[in-house]
Amino acid sequence: MAKAKERRNCVRFSGADALSLHCGVTLDNYTIAYQTYGTLNADRSNAIMIFHTLTADQYVTGTHPITQKPGWWSRIVGENLSVDTRAYFVICANVLGGCMGSEGPNSIRESTQKIWGLSFPVVTIGDMVRAQVALLDHLGIRVLHTAIGASMGGMQAMYFASKYTDRVHNVIIVATSPCMSPRNIGINEVARQSIMADVNWHMGNYEERHVIPEKGLAIARMAAHISYLSEKSMYQKFGRNLQDKEKLGYSFIESDFQVENYLRYQGKSFVKRFDANAYLYLTKAMDYFDMKATTESGLLTSAFAHCSNDFFIVSISSDWLHPTKDSMELVRALNIVGANVSFIEIQSDAGHDGFLLGDKEFCSVVKGFIERKKI
Amino acid sequence: MAKAKERRNCVRFSGADALSLHCGVTLDNYTIAYQTYGTLNADRSNAIMIFHTLTADQYVTGTHPITQKPGWWSRIVGENLSVDTRAYFVICANVLGGCMGSEGPNSIRESTQKIWGLSFPVVTIGDMVRAQVALLDHLGIRVLHTAIGASMGGMQAMYFASKYTDRVHNVIIVATSPCMSPRNIGINEVARQSIMADVNWHMGNYEERHVIPEKGLAIARMAAHISYLSEKSMYQKFGRNLQDKEKLGYSFIESDFQVENYLRYQGKSFVKRFDANAYLYLTKAMDYFDMKATTESGLLTSAFAHCSNDFFIVSISSDWLHPTKDSMELVRALNIVGANVSFIEIQSDAGHDGFLLGDKEFCSVVKGFIERKKI
Repeated sequence: MAKAKERRNCVRFSGADALSLHCGVTLDNYTIAYQTYGTLNADRSNAIMIFHTLTADQYVTGTHPITQKPGWWSRIVGENLSVDTRAYFVICANVLGGCMGSEGPNSIRESTQKIWGLSFPVVTIGDMVRAQVALLDHLGIRVLHTAIGASMGGMQAMYFASKYTDRVHNVIIVATSPCMSPRNIGINEVARQSIMADVNWHMGNYEERHVIPEKGLAIARMAAHISYLSEKSMYQKFGRNLQDKEKLGYSFIESDFQVENYLRYQGKSFVKRFDANAYLYLTKAMDYFDMKATTESGLLTSAFAHCSNDFFIVSISSDWLHPTKDSMELVRALNIVGANVSFIEIQSDAGHDGFLLGDKEFCSVVKGFIERKKI
Repeated sequence: MAKAKERRNCVRFSGADALSLHCGVTLDNYTIAYQTYGTLNADRSNAIMIFHTLTADQYVTGTHPITQKPGWWSRIVGENLSVDTRAYFVICANVLGGCMGSEGPNSIRESTQKIWGLSFPVVTIGDMVRAQVALLDHLGIRVLHTAIGASMGGMQAMYFASKYTDRVHNVIIVATSPCMSPRNIGINEVARQSIMADVNWHMGNYEERHVIPEKGLAIARMAAHISYLSEKSMYQKFGRNLQDKEKLGYSFIESDFQVENYLRYQGKSFVKRFDANAYLYLTKAMDYFDMKATTESGLLTSAFAHCSNDFFIVSISSDWLHPTKDSMELVRALNIVGANVSFIEIQSDAGHDGFLLGDKEFCSVVKGFIERKKI
């Protein structure tokens, strides 16, 4: 398994820092791995926390230590970019339940000195956020200049704004939904079933058998990839073009179409950098996410009625995984409670992936919103 | 395997009736299984052929011999219904490559007396149609009153109209596309990879080992089912309702949400009635379908320039698998060549599945179009 357990920056919490999870279990000890970019200023007022997506990690920019490719948001975060690392101190932590150094199902459990596997407790978006708040405390950062997240990261940003409104000025929530839709739960369930159906999964105990449920994880990734693109972008990228052949192959082993080849490639590369159990845990956390359910009233408005921070909600016009209407629902609730909220729908054919591409309009509006709050 | 090999009505073609397939192989012998409903009139002018969808079969109405449930189009076809079996003689054949009695990968190959498996040639929509034309010849039916098909059946109806325009008066093409989109190819590829990743698939030779790649086939069906529903219909059917529990289960084995349970159930029931290799072959036939590619010019208009039959194109507003714009592309081409074409978009939240539900507007317009041509 090529996936190294990164320990570049990490902090281990224990004792008074034990984490009570929503499921009822307490994590007595846990590690959070993180990266920082830029320099924290003297009055600690220039910190920006980025919450990462389902399959991203703390390596926001620079060269990723496993893939050797640029970090997932290297078009957005860096010197002179929308999140300008000359001016801001950027923090990104691997989520709880992840597989890039933070405590998760493929970490070593302290009490047994064995890999957690399925004995790792099921975590929620809220649990992830609370672990990252512990990191902020550890770093001595009381109030963030800006919190920003897209997709699963947007869910974390939303939860953070609701529960820790006094710890952040700007909150940017991109391409996400106030709850996971049944269709998206369905797509995640297909992914999980695919992993768990793999003969190498062994009820999650594959590492000790030195195997990986790589076919199942690759198929999960293929299904997810379809949901990240718009129909139009798939026509633009692939159309019905054949892959390295002049005519149809009339076979099942080799791929016929470029789109098949692309999806197979995405599946195969993914298993080199991601853990199958972590995929189960993180998709489950997303499925469980329902901002309304975090309030006593069950109303989305109640989640934000007390919020003093400024919100910027961004959707992508061709995103069908987290469509604009979901962002609009959040914007509506924020407006009802009189929150300070801006909203923009980025016009793009790129689908959900649109927030990764460094689209000019996206970069401009993110930069504009961040910089309206002086350091 | 509960799947019986139905032989209620079937005809075996051989000798002069050998079928030259698009892939270059000739099928010297092949069986086509079919059902008929109603009575053929004396001048053989009341025949309606129904082309079935990917996972449907010749049991259009009445009780299905395996599932014991009503046939897949029993809300549309029957006495006094849109396709009125008191007036018309309805024929539906299991497609070539299928698994309900017609020659396909789980049939016994005559020359070896073994199951074909992957030695069965890859067939196309055109090959399926030509096998069904052979059936019409066998039944002594020169000209159909109406040909009708939805989804994969719509592809067959489209091909039939183009290549056999003098053998049909009315052609009804429902919820389909003039070619398979890259997104739909992607969804099918996920399904195929899922089947082929199953440890019980054995390169397609599972029957002789008395196993079934049931997990892989179930996951393929789950993924497909998501594509058959609209996001709105999934909210209406399931929302975020939990399955038989008051609170989240924090586990991976039992399903939490109704939508997960529904998809798991759909997957499990499917493997009792459908063959995994047939799923590979039929999805491949759909992926290969491109009406433009059947012409020398490569233009969709050329496929219909010579057509003398009347067309009725029907789409469903919330269908994202075969969206209205795809039907519009076909309608545009038919109008350019001056074909007699009507078009309607059924307003429905049901998604692609909308054509199965007996929606009142759908039933009315289908009935109206069929009956405008007197028997």
